[in-house]
Amino acid sequence: MNTLNVSILQGIVGKNNVKDDPADLMVYGSDSSVHAARPWAVVRPGTVEQVQKIMKYAHENKIPVITRGAGSGMCGQTVPINGGISLDMKRMNRILEINPSDVYCRVEPGVVDDDLNAALKPHGVFYPPTPASSRIATIGGEIGNNASGVRSVKYGATRDSVLGLKVVLPGGKLVTLGARTRVEATGYQLHKLVVGSEGTLGVVVEATLSFVPIPKYRCLGMANFDRLEDAGNAIADIMAGGVIPSMLELVDNVAIKAVNKTMDLGLPEVEAVLLYEADGMVKEAVDYEIDTMKALCKKNNGTGLTSSFDPNERAKIFMGRKKLFPALSKFSEVLSSTSLADDMAVPYSKMAEMARKIHEIAEKNDIIMTAYGHCGSGCMHTKILMEPGRKDQWESAKNAVSQIYEYVRSVNGTTSAEHGIGISKADAFKAEKADSLDLMSQVKKAFDPHGILNPGKLMDAPKNWVTATDLRYMVG
Amino acid sequence: MNTLNVSILQGIVGKNNVKDDPADLMVYGSDSSVHAARPWAVVRPGTVEQVQKIMKYAHENKIPVITRGAGSGMCGQTVPINGGISLDMKRMNRILEINPSDVYCRVEPGVVDDDLNAALKPHGVFYPPTPASSRIATIGGEIGNNASGVRSVKYGATRDSVLGLKVVLPGGKLVTLGARTRVEATGYQLHKLVVGSEGTLGVVVEATLSFVPIPKYRCLGMANFDRLEDAGNAIADIMAGGVIPSMLELVDNVAIKAVNKTMDLGLPEVEAVLLYEADGMVKEAVDYEIDTMKALCKKNNGTGLTSSFDPNERAKIFMGRKKLFPALSKFSEVLSSTSLADDMAVPYSKMAEMARKIHEIAEKNDIIMTAYGHCGSGCMHTKILMEPGRKDQWESAKNAVSQIYEYVRSVNGTTSAEHGIGISKADAFKAEKADSLDLMSQVKKAFDPHGILNPGKLMDAPKNWVTATDLRYMVG
Repeated sequence: MNTLNVSILQGIVGKNNVKDDPADLMVYGSDSSVHAARPWAVVRPGTVEQVQKIMKYAHENKIPVITRGAGSGMCGQTVPINGGISLDMKRMNRILEINPSDVYCRVEPGVVDDDLNAALKPHGVFYPPTPASSRIATIGGEIGNNASGVRSVKYGATRDSVLGLKVVLPGGKLVTLGARTRVEATGYQLHKLVVGSEGTLGVVVEATLSFVPIPKYRCLGMANFDRLEDAGNAIADIMAGGVIPSMLELVDNVAIKAVNKTMDLGLPEVEAVLLYEADGMVKEAVDYEIDTMKALCKKNNGTGLTSSFDPNERAKIFMGRKKLFPALSKFSEVLSSTSLADDMAVPYSKMAEMARKIHEIAEKNDIIMTAYGHCGSGCMHTKILMEPGRKDQWESAKNAVSQIYEYVRSVNGTTSAEHGIGISKADAFKAEKADSLDLMSQVKKAFDPHGILNPGKLMDAPKNWVTATDLRYMVG
Repeated sequence: MNTLNVSILQGIVGKNNVKDDPADLMVYGSDSSVHAARPWAVVRPGTVEQVQKIMKYAHENKIPVITRGAGSGMCGQTVPINGGISLDMKRMNRILEINPSDVYCRVEPGVVDDDLNAALKPHGVFYPPTPASSRIATIGGEIGNNASGVRSVKYGATRDSVLGLKVVLPGGKLVTLGARTRVEATGYQLHKLVVGSEGTLGVVVEATLSFVPIPKYRCLGMANFDRLEDAGNAIADIMAGGVIPSMLELVDNVAIKAVNKTMDLGLPEVEAVLLYEADGMVKEAVDYEIDTMKALCKKNNGTGLTSSFDPNERAKIFMGRKKLFPALSKFSEVLSSTSLADDMAVPYSKMAEMARKIHEIAEKNDIIMTAYGHCGSGCMHTKILMEPGRKDQWESAKNAVSQIYEYVRSVNGTTSAEHGIGISKADAFKAEKADSLDLMSQVKKAFDPHGILNPGKLMDAPKNWVTATDLRYMVG
C-alpha cells in the first residue's frame, strides 16, 4: 500500500477540503449498496485545476482515486475497496451554460439532477434520464453509471443525452471529448465510452448535455392482470404496437402485498399491475397512445383499466409504485429489504417469465424477492427480503442472485439496465462479458496505465463479493 | 511491406473470392472520395469463421486489412493507403432475425440499408439512420461511419440504433459487445465505440439493431428566405420551439441556382430555402408541429410557406433537394462538383453564419461552394465546384477547406456530422481533437496492437492529403 501525503492534498484543495477522521472515512466508505470499506482520505476539489493536480499526484504515487457524487449508487461503485482518495465532486456544482437555441447545457459534475431540471424548466425543457434518486443524484454520478429511469423507454439513458465531456485523466491531462452538436461522426467518440465506466477511465469535470421539450400533456393509466404472463404479453404487444410510451412499469404481487400491508391504497392483489404513460404536445396524440395501450392490455386480459391527465389523479395512480421502496422495507419486523441483484435487463418478451423465475428462485432459496421495473426499456428491478443477521440467509441470497443472472444470460439479457456493476454484480458481469473482459482491461490501460481509478471494480472486482468487503447491513 | 500469400487467402475463402487482377484492385482502391490507392488483394469472406481466419493471418503477418461495404464513403475511409487486403463484406448479407416483440433485428454487415427497410416494412417498423446512399450503403459501412441522414434530427444516428455488435478482432478473436435490450449499464459499452471507428478497431460481423414504428402521417413544407440569417434564426427557433421535426433541411442560393439551371422547377432564387417535415401516428399532432414550424418561419420573414401530407406533393417539394447532387454536377461545362470538406456540424445558432462563411471563403479562394444540409441535426454539407484539371484549383480548394474547418472549430462545431474523417478531413480532425489523439491511439492499440486495421486513417492519416494519395478525379 502506497502511503498518502495528506499535506500535499491540503496544499492543493485547502485544509478544509481534506478529511481523514474516522467518521468521515466511514461515511465515504459506503454508498447505497451492502458494501463498505475505508478510503485513506476524502478530498473535495473545487476547480478543474485542483482535480488535475490531484490526479497528477495520485498517478505518480499510484494512489487509488474513487470519484464520488452523492454516493447513491446501489452496487458499491464508490466503495474504496483498495483504499485511496475518495474524490468528492459535489463542490463543483455550477451550471455553466444553458443554451436553448443550440439545445444544450454545460454543467459541472456535482450538479444535482433535480437542480438542473429546476434551472431548465423556465426554458420549457428538461433533462430526461432522471433516475429515481434524482433528488440527490449528481450528474457526474449519473454519467458514471449511465443512469436511467422511468421515462428512459421514450427519452433514452444518460449516454443518449451526453453530447460531450471534459475529463481529467490519470497524470492530470484534461481532454475534451465529443461535441456540442446533435450528430457527430468525428473519430472515436470516447465520451460515450466514459459514460457508464463507473469512474474507472477518468474524472468527468464538465458535461455538455442535450435536453428535450417539456410535454404539455401527460396521461397515466393502470391495468391489473391476474396472470403475470398476460402482463408480459401486453408489454411486448405495446412495444411492437406503434406507440412509444413515456413510461411502462410492471409491479408484481409481492410488491403489491407490501404496499397494501403498509399503506391504505387497496391495490387489487393480482399477479401484476402495469402502469402506462404517454406524453406529448397535442392531446389527441396522447389520447391515441393511451387508447392503443389500453386496448393492448385489454386484449391480454387486463382489467380495471384507468387513465387520467389530471396531476392529482396521476399521483394517486403512481402512489403504489412510488411507495414501493419504503413499503418493502416495512414488509415485516424480521425481514429487511436488500439490494443485491437489484437490476437487470431482458428482452420484452421475457419480462413475465423473468418475474416468474425470480419468484421461483427466491422460494427455492428461502428468501422473498420482488420483481418490478421499467419494462418499457427492458429493465427489471428486484429487492431481496431476508434476515440480514443470519449468515445462511446471505448465502441463500447469494445463490439466488447467481441463479437469477444465469437465467438472464440464458435469455440474452444483460446484467444491468441502469444501476451498473460495482462490486455486487461483478461476478455476473464477468460471466456475461467473458469474451470481451481482456479487451476492456486493455481499454482501461489506455486511459489509466497505473490502474489508479476505482481499482477492484468491473472486470477487476473480487470474486467473492459477500466476504470481499465489509457488509454494512450485516448485524450480529 | 509485408508480402501477401494469396494461396493462403484462397484456402480460406475459395479461389473465386480472392481477386488480385489490376482492374479489381483499381475499383477497390477507391470509394466515393477524391482519393485512390491500390490494395494487394480483394478478399470476400462469406462466414464469421472465414473472417476470423483472415484476421488471424493478417495479424500474424502484419498485413493491413481495410474492411469495405459498398465503397460509398465520401472521405477515403476504405482507400487502402498502405495496401493490404480489401475485405469486401458484401457477401455476408443475411438478415438473421427480425423480432418485432423485442424490437430488434440481427443482420450481417453486408445487408444493404434499403433491403433491411424493405424487410422491416411488413412489421410496420423502419430502421431510421438511413443516409442518402441507402440504396447501396451497407449496414456495416454505416456502422463504420456512424452514418445518419435527413431524419436523424428526430431518430438519431446509427450509434443510437445499434444495441450490440459481434466483432472479429485482429488475431481472429470473436467478441460479442452490447446487448439486445433497450437500456444497458453493464460496464464499458464497446459496441458504441466501434460505431464510427471507420474500420480501425475490428471487423463487424453481426449487428443487433433497434427500429421504430413507421409513422402514419408525414407532412412536408417549405419556406423561402431572402436572407440566410433569417433562415438561420428560424432553425434555432424551431429547435428551441418545443417541436421535434422529422426533417429540417437548408438549401442555399448556389444550390438553388444549380437546380434551376438544370431542371424546370422554378425555385425562387432567394438566399435560402428551408424544408421542414413532421411525422407521427396522429394527424393533429403532425398539424401542430407543422403549424408551429410555419409560424416560426413566418416570424423570421419566411415567405411562400407551403406544406402537404400528399405523397406526390411532398415529392414535388423535395425534388429540388433530391436533385441537388446531379444539378451541381451539371452546373457548368468546366466546373466539377467535388467532395472535400463535404460535411461538418455546428450549433444551430451558427448555421446561417456558417453558410455565409462558406460562400465568403469560396469567393476568396476563387472556387464556388454550396452550403446545404440536415440543419436539424446541426449538419452542414458542402460541395466544391472547381476545375479538377487545374492544380491551382486544388490548392485553392485545399485552402478553402482548411479555412472552413478553422471557422467550424471557432464556433465549437465538429469536423464531421455524418460522413466521417477518412483521409480528406484528417487534418481538421487532428486540429479539433488535438488533446485526445494520444488517447485515441492508445485505445486503437488496445484493439489492434499491430496496427493492421485500416492504417493511415483518422489520427494516423498523412498530413498532406491532396498529394498523399492519387486523386482519382485529377485530370491532365
